[in-house]
This record gives sequence, structure tokens and C-alpha cells, in this order.
Amino acid sequence: MTPIVGILGGMGPAATVDLFDRIVRATPARTDQDHLRILIDNNPAVPDRTAAILEGGADPLPALRAGTAGLAAQGADLIAMPCNTAHHFLPAMQETTSVPIVDMIGETARDIARRHGAGRTVGIMATRGTIACGLYQRALRKAGLSAAVPAETEQDRLMEAIYGPEGIKAGAPAPGPRTLLREVAAALVEQGAEILLLGCTELPLVLDADDLPVPMAASNQILAEAVVRTALSS
Amino acid sequence: MTPIVGILGGMGPAATVDLFDRIVRATPARTDQDHLRILIDNNPAVPDRTAAILEGGADPLPALRAGTAGLAAQGADLIAMPCNTAHHFLPAMQETTSVPIVDMIGETARDIARRHGAGRTVGIMATRGTIACGLYQRALRKAGLSAAVPAETEQDRLMEAIYGPEGIKAGAPAPGPRTLLREVAAALVEQGAEILLLGCTELPLVLDADDLPVPMAASNQILAEAVVRTALSS
Repeated sequence: MTPIVGILGGMGPAATVDLFDRIVRATPARTDQDHLRILIDNNPAVPDRTAAILEGGADPLPALRAGTAGLAAQGADLIAMPCNTAHHFLPAMQETTSVPIVDMIGETARDIARRHGAGRTVGIMATRGTIACGLYQRALRKAGLSAAVPAETEQDRLMEAIYGPEGIKAGAPAPGPRTLLREVAAALVEQGAEILLLGCTELPLVLDADDLPVPMAASNQILAEAVVRTALSS
Repeated sequence: MTPIVGILGGMGPAATVDLFDRIVRATPARTDQDHLRILIDNNPAVPDRTAAILEGGADPLPALRAGTAGLAAQGADLIAMPCNTAHHFLPAMQETTSVPIVDMIGETARDIARRHGAGRTVGIMATRGTIACGLYQRALRKAGLSAAVPAETEQDRLMEAIYGPEGIKAGAPAPGPRTLLREVAAALVEQGAEILLLGCTELPLVLDADDLPVPMAASNQILAEAVVRTALSS
């Protein structure tokens, strides 16, 4: 039987809608019945991941573990988590469940190496939490790639685009955050980035390939494809 | 505590993505943590509802009841079902659960009466199963509205737009189904329809207000607003 996909979402809700949409679109199907069964727990009450990593904010791990356990109890055979920063907690989450959690970070780094070849420099556009814990820097290195990260000013702009009063999580119209993000992208290209990694699932909600001066890799699209591939090959 | 929303989906998956998206957008929120917790069971294996109603196809009721029970067990306090045709089974589903299932059909009829006033004629664009069991005809009458339903030829076109090899459920590009649906809409207006009711959750995926010659009522948007209103007023 085709495995049941679990999505541990809510971080944020719009990015969860986006991953669900990308999985449905990536599934080869001509009728409803050809599609995958997908269980979603959109739990926006999970404490902010960046705040926990950088400022000693409330620990999201208990909520993440509870969400994983709930999806497993409902029958999920694999779990996807559309929040890059939350992947900092993935090893600790995996300790308390036997259901495999798809590693969006590793999938994304390997996908970039496959498409663009090793040795390239990848500019990481991600939250301050994701950058601070080195998630993508390590995964890219392991895949034979180099990383460029935003300077402080650009990281501030990026956080404003995600969390600001006119930002993506506040549901602001796309043009404002898009302008900020294009400035960050331009600075990373200046630093040598040949590929831009959208390493926060909120970013593809307002940016697409046409907005960027070099090829991009959207972590949610790569996660969606990995989920469909894993489910259909089982 | 804010109620937990359950979505019994998969009928079809793209319409489930659409309802989830509309609920997230309809929620007044500035941060992730302001959003609703939403549990989704996207189960595309539920047997086709129209085939069951019209052709003695496999009964979807056991799967619908099991889905409801699963969402209730996970903590859902109210359930939304983004499939108009499946609402034929709603009374039987409600018999086996104490969790209220939001009635998209009644909500839609009342919303039209509220916005446009009683006595208007509403053209119903829905599957042959929904039309055959008179779901909207009854609900509109109860709300003081009149119904116009597609003639046989137009109903064939509508089913082709939804189920055909170049239809919405097959993931075809929007322009093909849109052309068919605009023909159906024009014929209903010819019959006297002053408002067009998109009474199948697949239709708003390819049609918007600009495509139609008279005002429209999209059942999934009305369901999304009813869900948010119900959850936030509890």
C-alpha cells in the first residue's frame, strides 16, 4: 500500500499550504483516487524556532515531538516538516519516533549538487536561526558545495521581510518583502553566490525564479518532490 | 481555548489545498501564533460521491465516517468538508459523531440570501450528483431563493470540465475547463440566473468573478469564512 504522508506544519501556515499544494501538483494523477493520502497537523502554536535558538525563547521541541507522535498515531509512514529552522530540532525529534522525518536540508543540498555540480557557491537565504546553527553550511559542505551567508545588514532585511509588520508572516502583500529579498539576493551574488537557496519556506511565497539574477533552489519544492518520490517508490 | 478545526479532504486534493489556503487567508493574524490549529485528513481514496449517488458506485459513507472519527480522536472541535457532493452523506455522518460538521450547502444558501436579498434566481453549477440529490435546490428554497439548474447538454459540459481527460481533477491547465464552464454559466444566465453558485469546490480553482457575467458565490470561500467565524467566536 502507498505510504501515508504526514505534514507537521503551521510554521507558518501559509508555507504549509504551499508545501501541500506542491505535493499535490508533483503527484502524477488523473483522478482524485490517484493522489496520496496526506495527514496534516497545522499547529501554529509551536514556539518560534529562531527565538528559541538565538534568544532562549520557549522550547519548540515538546510541541514538535507531540505533533510527530500524533501524526504517527494516525498512520503516517513518513513525515515532512515545512520549516527549515525547525530542522535544528530534527535529530531530537527523530529520537522519539520510528517514523522517518524527511530531511529537507540534506535533500536541498544534494539536489543543488545534482543539478548544478559540486564546487559551486550557494547563497543561503534563511532565518537568522537557520544561519546561526549552521544547518545549511554543513549540509552544503557535505554535498561538495560552498556557502555564502548574508552580511548583518542583509540578514536584518531578510528577517524584516519574514517577520516585519509588512512581512510575509503578517500576510502583507508580496511586493514589499520581495523588494527587501531582492536586495539580499543581489548582495549574495556580489559575494560570489552562483545559486540562491531559498532556505526558509516562507520565501517562495513571494519570490520566484524571475525575481532573481541567478538560478534558485526552493527548499519547499525540493521537499515536495522528495516526499512524492519516497512515497511512490515504497 | 480556540477550537481546533478539522478538514476532511481529498475530494479532491486541489480543492482541499484551496480551502486550507482560504481559511489561512481569512484568519486575522500578524504572526504564526495568531493562526488556527487545523488538522487535515486528505484522503483521496474516498469513493467518488457522484458515482455512488447516480450509478450505485462504491459507498463513500464508511470512509467519510472513519475520517470524521479520526479527526475527532485527534481533537477536532468542528469539521469542514470541502466537497459539496459529499454533503449528501452529511446527515448520516453526523449520526456517528458529536463533533459538528459545518454545512457548506446551508452556509452558502444563507450567504447568498444575505448578500443579494431573497427572491433572486441562483444558477447552480455543481456535479450531476449534487444536482440529482437536490442539495442546493432545497437549501436555496429554504433561504427564500429560486434555483436554475443546467440543462442536460450543459451538465455534460460541466462534468467534462471537472472529470474529463482535460478537466480540473486531471490537473489540466485552467483555460480548457474555464471555456466549458463559461458556456454553462452563459446558459444559466439565459435561463434567468442572477447569481452563479459555484457549488463544486473544484470550480473556483479555474473560475473567478471576472470570468462570469453575473455575481458569483464560491462555496469554498463561504465555507472558509464560516469556519473562521465559528472558530473565533467560540
